[in-house]
Amino acid sequence: MATDCIFCKIAKGEIPCSRVYEDKDLLVFLDIAPANKGHCLIVTKEHYETLTDLPPELLRKTTEVCQKVAKALSLSLGTDGFNLFMNNGRAAGQLVSHAHFHIVPRFSTDGIRFEWPHKKYADREMQEYQDKIKKFL
Amino acid sequence: MATDCIFCKIAKGEIPCSRVYEDKDLLVFLDIAPANKGHCLIVTKEHYETLTDLPPELLRKTTEVCQKVAKALSLSLGTDGFNLFMNNGRAAGQLVSHAHFHIVPRFSTDGIRFEWPHKKYADREMQEYQDKIKKFL
Repeated sequence: MATDCIFCKIAKGEIPCSRVYEDKDLLVFLDIAPANKGHCLIVTKEHYETLTDLPPELLRKTTEVCQKVAKALSLSLGTDGFNLFMNNGRAAGQLVSHAHFHIVPRFSTDGIRFEWPHKKYADREMQEYQDKIKKFL
Repeated sequence: MATDCIFCKIAKGEIPCSRVYEDKDLLVFLDIAPANKGHCLIVTKEHYETLTDLPPELLRKTTEVCQKVAKALSLSLGTDGFNLFMNNGRAAGQLVSHAHFHIVPRFSTDGIRFEWPHKKYADREMQEYQDKIKKFL
């Protein structure tokens, strides 16, 4: 457990949450400041910081639980879709440095815009990015 | 293959892409309208619509490749973080109805805001949502 990590404290039951699912590795609860009502957080009980830190077996379990949560939101709320997202690192808007996935239930009429402005690659720049990234894959 | 699915066509090599990774199940290429330069799409070669449609083994492979892509972005671009996201269903902003994850490289100074306005639960409403969702998990 990381000292002063709010999600570690929630996982240990030291801070309450609106839990909707729990197993030995994972906890799912409602976000208290939801993008849409029913917004769930899927949290590993053990402390890892980001997606790249999760060991393979835990990653597998976590994403399978994400599937279950998405299905449960569909069945319980009659959603038309959902957003899955995970912010990794403070620069990416990660507010709690303990790995967690968000699932936001969506409805055709909810008016939420989940979009960023698009950037444009200059001439040859896309090729340069492709070459750079490819080297490490 | 789904008729007229652009990602099926890309996976079959009928439409070009800036590919950075490929294996027998998955293809990773640069988004042509990136949220940030280096924005990658992780696409299953076989046609599935959303996260909940992906079979377990393919889901496992896909998220492991997402980890690899995030690490490659860090090594190649010197990122400070990244966003992983997946829009599922038209209501959630899914533009191509073929399952795909986005990974957006992030930098402390990039000025991108990846946030939605927060909603508020009325009295007892959070409990109601918890009870409803819990039943299906």
